[in-house]
Amino acid sequence: MTDTIQMALVQIDEYGPWTVTPAPRRETDLQSLQAELFAELSSFVGERDGYAFYGRFDNMVAVTNGRDPESHRAFQRRVRNRYPVTVSVGVGRATTPVDALGAATEELQAAGSAQADDRREVFGVAERDLPAEARERVTVAHFDVVDATGSLTDRVNAADATLAVRRATLELATHLREAHDSVAHFVGGDNVIAVCPDLDAAAFDEAITHVREASDIELQVGVGRGPTAHAAGDDAKEALEVCRETGTRIRGVDRVAADD
Amino acid sequence: MTDTIQMALVQIDEYGPWTVTPAPRRETDLQSLQAELFAELSSFVGERDGYAFYGRFDNMVAVTNGRDPESHRAFQRRVRNRYPVTVSVGVGRATTPVDALGAATEELQAAGSAQADDRREVFGVAERDLPAEARERVTVAHFDVVDATGSLTDRVNAADATLAVRRATLELATHLREAHDSVAHFVGGDNVIAVCPDLDAAAFDEAITHVREASDIELQVGVGRGPTAHAAGDDAKEALEVCRETGTRIRGVDRVAADD
Amino acid sequence: MTDTIQMALVQIDEYGPWTVTPAPRRETDLQSLQAELFAELSSFVGERDGYAFYGRFDNMVAVTNGRDPESHRAFQRRVRNRYPVTVSVGVGRATTPVDALGAATEELQAAGSAQADDRREVFGVAERDLPAEARERVTVAHFDVVDATGSLTDRVNAADATLAVRRATLELATHLREAHDSVAHFVGGDNVIAVCPDLDAAAFDEAITHVREASDIELQVGVGRGPTAHAAGDDAKEALEVCRETGTRIRGVDRVAADD
Amino acid sequence: MTDTIQMALVQIDEYGPWTVTPAPRRETDLQSLQAELFAELSSFVGERDGYAFYGRFDNMVAVTNGRDPESHRAFQRRVRNRYPVTVSVGVGRATTPVDALGAATEELQAAGSAQADDRREVFGVAERDLPAEARERVTVAHFDVVDATGSLTDRVNAADATLAVRRATLELATHLREAHDSVAHFVGGDNVIAVCPDLDAAAFDEAITHVREASDIELQVGVGRGPTAHAAGDDAKEALEVCRETGTRIRGVDRVAADD
Repeated sequence: MTDTIQMALVQIDEYGPWTVTPAPRRETDLQSLQAELFAELSSFVGERDGYAFYGRFDNMVAVTNGRDPESHRAFQRRVRNRYPVTVSVGVGRATTPVDALGAATEELQAAGSAQADDRREVFGVAERDLPAEARERVTVAHFDVVDATGSLTDRVNAADATLAVRRATLELATHLREAHDSVAHFVGGDNVIAVCPDLDAAAFDEAITHVREASDIELQVGVGRGPTAHAAGDDAKEALEVCRETGTRIRGVDRVAADD
Repeated sequence: MTDTIQMALVQIDEYGPWTVTPAPRRETDLQSLQAELFAELSSFVGERDGYAFYGRFDNMVAVTNGRDPESHRAFQRRVRNRYPVTVSVGVGRATTPVDALGAATEELQAAGSAQADDRREVFGVAERDLPAEARERVTVAHFDVVDATGSLTDRVNAADATLAVRRATLELATHLREAHDSVAHFVGGDNVIAVCPDLDAAAFDEAITHVREASDIELQVGVGRGPTAHAAGDDAKEALEVCRETGTRIRGVDRVAADD
Repeated sequence: MTDTIQMALVQIDEYGPWTVTPAPRRETDLQSLQAELFAELSSFVGERDGYAFYGRFDNMVAVTNGRDPESHRAFQRRVRNRYPVTVSVGVGRATTPVDALGAATEELQAAGSAQADDRREVFGVAERDLPAEARERVTVAHFDVVDATGSLTDRVNAADATLAVRRATLELATHLREAHDSVAHFVGGDNVIAVCPDLDAAAFDEAITHVREASDIELQVGVGRGPTAHAAGDDAKEALEVCRETGTRIRGVDRVAADD
Repeated sequence: MTDTIQMALVQIDEYGPWTVTPAPRRETDLQSLQAELFAELSSFVGERDGYAFYGRFDNMVAVTNGRDPESHRAFQRRVRNRYPVTVSVGVGRATTPVDALGAATEELQAAGSAQADDRREVFGVAERDLPAEARERVTVAHFDVVDATGSLTDRVNAADATLAVRRATLELATHLREAHDSVAHFVGGDNVIAVCPDLDAAAFDEAITHVREASDIELQVGVGRGPTAHAAGDDAKEALEVCRETGTRIRGVDRVAADD
């Protein structure tokens, strides 16, 4: 059976114009607002066993497998009642994260420009190429840098540590997007989380090799699968713990595959 | 006279171990916590006319020109009283942002590992190569992508829009670090803010050209200078508004230079 | 059929000692922490169609009709992962709010003192005198002061406006507790929300009369009933709007009663 | 020399209408919003060594001795940039807290009704009866209930514990307002903080006696004086710790008086 993945795109309405109207707003206030809004989304989605990524902050992303698309309207309500901005939400379902996010994106794009002043609180749901036989299931891969503390945090300039992790993140995310229609995102420290279709160990090995060659950074990865991002991600985190303890580079794929 | 820049490195103490003790903590809770902590830092620093960047979240960065280094201890107190983690803070002063951040980093590294369980709430201040004649002044360059809404947000898959902006950010940040000892950071949407020494228009032109060639993304930039990041950044934002309205790619450098 | 009401008592563990260890913590940090914690509870409970009251802040109260008591553990987890304190939670079910809260209170008291350093994250559920035939239903009465803006906010010293509203709140809450085993709480502005068993219009009329006589403040009230606090409370708010528009003092009781 | 006290009244603009437009907003969202707004005020004021009280939430109060009244505009800006509402601020200076708050209140009342849709972000500063020779100094009295944990929290229904503390708070606040033009506010747990003119030990003894007679609750109090609420309040908290340890009912008054 094919896995179905549900992703949501949360877009702040008319945010660019708002940040400079009537005059450019204080940068640190904008930074705080964006961070609070993401913390809110992450809490909201987390309560529903999903995962959220900050994306570009004005365009945030969530994996909400297993939840009624209509339930996302509650997030629109919370934002309207708690923040000086409103958000539009597109929800997409497909067999890959990129297609799901593409379907979600198109729902918003079809409704008008992100900066149009008459496009507010759009809500749309779309499916793309869903086969008749499909189950709600997502694969989460949780990567981190091998010995990041010893090789980066405790050793180099913080500016360079950040650049190194960002380089590895970007090479990984670009590779996974191109090779496997997956969405990967930096989640803090030296951690990157990827939402993927049902990839095997060879695919993750290839990804790690690609990052090593492109950025000279060595990653390890724990992989989990489950009906929700939280279920899959928790397994991935535990698998990553095993990597940390044993020195293995990839854990969780075979075990899970065997279980199915 | 040479400009002096003051930067702070805020590092969560023993964060890696905490996130997996006694068992891996829920990912969305960690994401919310990190975002709240950054919102707190941005508010705190903003009240003091500085700028903050989320960095790697467990290692955040602030530009705090003009403020007594001791005042950063108040942030340590706030975190201790409001969050389940504590932070160490290094403050560095130098003639470039990278050197200032380097001095700050070394203060923390000298005190022990970021994951050592006996290293908590370290506070250190250091200077590096400060000339006798120096003034507190910083240059802020506020970049964004030309027509990001039309070319990215309203047109491509959100996954690809994010990757494009991240690619441009990384190429820009890497170039500015290598060529000018500057620190650049993504700040949401299609915006990147760089903290720099006293660069001229040619340096910004070169940076924009570099990003265009490396990532095929066209940036524009507003530049400001001032005694604090907020003062410089506000001028930079206004200059960027002029770019948006007039189609100029670089604004603010000459005018400011002429004013001095 | 008798109504069953479910209430939760959320108690910060060992909070008194924490606020003065190792030295008295900064008062404004404590105030912020408490307010954030209540905002968190209100969001959490609100997502589940309940209502939350800040109580004494270190002891907060929620109406969580219709929710599995076990689901409250998710709130304990959130606090543990996001705040410097932990909470214990007692959940009680009974035919009146005071009995439900009493059952919840006893679960915590039986586990040890609120200030015992070995009593952390207690979780207990209890029922009290539940009849065989019962349904999950709660009555919410939403009171406010008639023309508070004109008679208080726009007219008297803010110190006296606050005292007047607090006097009315306390007289109302004391009366409803003694006469009807109900729990009433100030919720901001000039609003008081009471959670009650299935009271009739005469009971609310008597309450309003009592407050007028004891404090010389004139209240009006909208009443709603439903399976959850949110459902009942929304009806109550709409009924109160009718009071405001029509000058009626009590709305919502008969209609609802007639509907059943 | 006479003490001068500076108080600020922070009033949400047109809040009543906003909460029911276009339809009554979800109660738990309003509760969260109000609590976040107060947490923000408390942080803001705390950074400036002041104290904040939540008052009626839509009308909050702060003691901001020693700060330029103009600095309160920064709070207006933060709210405008971070919340769906705006606030008006009145700042008053006088020789008693009630007069200072009265002067602040009148600034807002003179500008129009709190619910007028054309009255937004008012800012006003006023003095009342300031003598020629005056110094910025405030007296803070921090009260709590003797053995609240043993007699209330660990022993009675949470509903009754809350009512008991609220009764004691109201009797205390009413007495201090009438007898000494002071402003007292519940601050969580069993704590009440009063901002006062330069009262002596007999005044506090009388207040405690009044509460005991009116509500049968025994209070103790630590008193501090200083140029800011934080300075005075920290001394008060330490003095209260001495009460807790030694069983004294009033501490801090004589010592401070003797020091002057």
